[in-house]
Amino acid sequence: MIPEPDPNTKEGSFLRSALTLENRFQPLDEVRAWLRDRQADAGVQIEEIPLERLTDWETDVESGDLFHTSGKFFRVHGVRVRTNFPGCPGEWDQPIINQPEIGLLGIVTRVFDGVRYFLMQAKMEPGNINRVQLSPTVQATRSNFTQVHGGKTTQFLDLFLGGEARVLVDQLQSEQGTRFLRKRNRNMIVEVDSDIPDQENLRWLTLGELKCLLQEDDRVNMDTRTILSCIPLVESRVREQCGDATREQIASSSLFGHHLQGLGLDLFHSLINRDRCTHTGDEAISWLTRLKTLYTLDVSYLPLNQVRHWVRRDGLVRHETTNYFSVIGVAVRAHDREVDSWSQPILKHEGLGLVGVVAQRKQGVLHFLVQAKVEPGIMDVLEMGPTVSIWDIDRRAVDESRAPFLERFLDAPPERVHYDRIQSEEGGRFYHLRNRYMLVELPEGEAVELPENFTWMTLGQIMDFVRLNNYFNIEARGLLACLGLLP
Amino acid sequence: MIPEPDPNTKEGSFLRSALTLENRFQPLDEVRAWLRDRQADAGVQIEEIPLERLTDWETDVESGDLFHTSGKFFRVHGVRVRTNFPGCPGEWDQPIINQPEIGLLGIVTRVFDGVRYFLMQAKMEPGNINRVQLSPTVQATRSNFTQVHGGKTTQFLDLFLGGEARVLVDQLQSEQGTRFLRKRNRNMIVEVDSDIPDQENLRWLTLGELKCLLQEDDRVNMDTRTILSCIPLVESRVREQCGDATREQIASSSLFGHHLQGLGLDLFHSLINRDRCTHTGDEAISWLTRLKTLYTLDVSYLPLNQVRHWVRRDGLVRHETTNYFSVIGVAVRAHDREVDSWSQPILKHEGLGLVGVVAQRKQGVLHFLVQAKVEPGIMDVLEMGPTVSIWDIDRRAVDESRAPFLERFLDAPPERVHYDRIQSEEGGRFYHLRNRYMLVELPEGEAVELPENFTWMTLGQIMDFVRLNNYFNIEARGLLACLGLLP
Repeated sequence: MIPEPDPNTKEGSFLRSALTLENRFQPLDEVRAWLRDRQADAGVQIEEIPLERLTDWETDVESGDLFHTSGKFFRVHGVRVRTNFPGCPGEWDQPIINQPEIGLLGIVTRVFDGVRYFLMQAKMEPGNINRVQLSPTVQATRSNFTQVHGGKTTQFLDLFLGGEARVLVDQLQSEQGTRFLRKRNRNMIVEVDSDIPDQENLRWLTLGELKCLLQEDDRVNMDTRTILSCIPLVESRVREQCGDATREQIASSSLFGHHLQGLGLDLFHSLINRDRCTHTGDEAISWLTRLKTLYTLDVSYLPLNQVRHWVRRDGLVRHETTNYFSVIGVAVRAHDREVDSWSQPILKHEGLGLVGVVAQRKQGVLHFLVQAKVEPGIMDVLEMGPTVSIWDIDRRAVDESRAPFLERFLDAPPERVHYDRIQSEEGGRFYHLRNRYMLVELPEGEAVELPENFTWMTLGQIMDFVRLNNYFNIEARGLLACLGLLP
Repeated sequence: MIPEPDPNTKEGSFLRSALTLENRFQPLDEVRAWLRDRQADAGVQIEEIPLERLTDWETDVESGDLFHTSGKFFRVHGVRVRTNFPGCPGEWDQPIINQPEIGLLGIVTRVFDGVRYFLMQAKMEPGNINRVQLSPTVQATRSNFTQVHGGKTTQFLDLFLGGEARVLVDQLQSEQGTRFLRKRNRNMIVEVDSDIPDQENLRWLTLGELKCLLQEDDRVNMDTRTILSCIPLVESRVREQCGDATREQIASSSLFGHHLQGLGLDLFHSLINRDRCTHTGDEAISWLTRLKTLYTLDVSYLPLNQVRHWVRRDGLVRHETTNYFSVIGVAVRAHDREVDSWSQPILKHEGLGLVGVVAQRKQGVLHFLVQAKVEPGIMDVLEMGPTVSIWDIDRRAVDESRAPFLERFLDAPPERVHYDRIQSEEGGRFYHLRNRYMLVELPEGEAVELPENFTWMTLGQIMDFVRLNNYFNIEARGLLACLGLLP
């Protein structure tokens, strides 16, 4: 028996929101239809163009770096990377996006009749394969909201920065360490009590509905996923009748709440367990400490035109082998007055990546296999990530030594695959970059040999680290948001 | 009634160690006498020498930087610092120590008859005003233990790095952000079961004894203090008789344990409280997130000979005003065959600093006033520190805007001062640098207006952050180790 959560508490309203699939405003199918309509008529035409034809973006004559004429937004330059991290070549050069400012990703929330709703935006980003995805209420670089464009004020920004709304989530989180140099965003959820006028690009959705849409491909964008991953685990006591006795358990979470009703209590308990873990939290800290001492990471600036094995040719910057990614130009042309036109550099990826986590029950308690990973753009040597994250499944020969558990995903028996969907990465910086997100459960008792930079953690332990900045990377957080969970 | 802690658990043995002032090996007075003997005959002569006369240290012809001919140890160069942190000049230059490697500070511990003992070393450092202080079992830079000196192997190192002993504490912790560029040390406590042969420079001490010695000036060195501050709070349930009822409370900690017997249970409970706090842990994270977004820190390399307002003259590097510090040479000459001779650059400070924390009970729960502080050598914009930390009490006119609560310490009525001792900073890098460490309690209910970068936290909340790297700075951790606590 699961007690009705008290909607008057923050925790209770998160939990009810996660459980609610009946939306007071519109059925979920209507949300799907609305998203399709926005996708079909995004009001823009998006075109790949040579870097030379970008407006307001220039190439530095000496360094070859790409920069905005205002000096704001981001700069694309090179880095030389040296590390002793296992599986890496030791030293390499690559282009990287340098955006030395903290942006804002924020969702406005409001409780209607005890159920919490989130104000989601249908937003066009040039890199989205389907143009429009479900995005946070606000998604703004600092340059955006200090109006370097000379454009419109970012809507709702005062709710986040002006102290007008109650802050429920406010964390600093990292972005892709292989593509961004130390980039971070402030991830926020703020609560309002007053009306927000209807807008064609906005809809109120419950957490349960967002979880449903995450069971489909390419609907919920990366920025939404990272914010959702920050929602704290909400625990409430549940009494369970076992024969004559009544057992009391700590047994729920908002993040996974909408699956609560379908889950056995024991399994749910095991998800958020912090006691029956294979390692304590202090042991996890010791493991991280040792690895941060062991691994070195030295990243130094390189002019873009001096990056070895990368060439600028035919209007783009790419690797000699055409592997990895290329830096291209993209032009967004409005055929609708309400929409801006602009052009910008963007990272184009071919192929499909994989972000996967292996799970296994250990003495009944579900553990996830976490990898500590050194990446050039990381602030403090390494962050924890999913078991596997690679940029291109098909070119895995290139990366095999860097992805020890890859075959656990590619060769997984279907009944062991609990999540398998394709999700898009941020369409403002990545062009058509998509990852296959997977959760695969290994049979209990099957021996797994771990390289030194892998460890097992329960969901409760993971969430303890997630709320602190620069512990779990965006691939891991994006996957957490997707998980529903086990059957 | 306080139950006897179970010495068979890690927690129980920490707690007993904190409570034990009767040492099975020697009385505390004998430890004091031994330290005095080692101080009187440290086997060395220490002399200030011009930088030009250093052996194996050179000045780069172009940059003026000081470096070791091996390329190891540390380098003294300049930095240009830009920040919008309140009270700072906005932009300034200064020399800084660059030591881009993680060293080891480690204490060996062993349980004898249920009481935990720590193996402490009487160690000479050239910057110590009294030459020899109580130091960790091992205190080694990576250059030390990879033997750049060509000298002896660091003793006991295998216990820490070789996996031969049980790891009880293993955390990455920062050093002075105003003097070091991103320097960190691995702080460890490891447990052994086997005998360690007697040595004249080593003694086994309990945590209670170390706490007693911290009630005296300049006995326990900085490296010991930072390791002690990492010992987790140990909580155990205590039953208290109140009239007819029995109240159960969570009521102890190893760090503060030896004062347990003298403390009211309510007060002790309040110390480690995580529930009745003025702010939740999530609110503290939001506060840090906001400040990290708000404040900027840009630190760039400068050749030492281009640091504005600093001059190299008469064999040292100093500020034009002789304020702040100077970089001098120091020669250690052994008159004892067992001891090494060497020379090195070192930072010399005149005057006495102040590291102070303000405490106040709020609805009966003791809170500490924490400052978030931007310093040039910090890895992630800011770390949390004590209420006040300044380098020279007498020149406070220079720094007054940077130390808002200074008068709370300098004008404190004696009955409100619960700790007031002088402790030395690391004698391997700092010459005669000492701080007055203070804890002052404000009357409950007295209104305190807080600048935006200050907040109140309970000890329990502080300790939750301490175990994670780069949250609490070394001044705060050093003070935590000293606290005993309230009368």
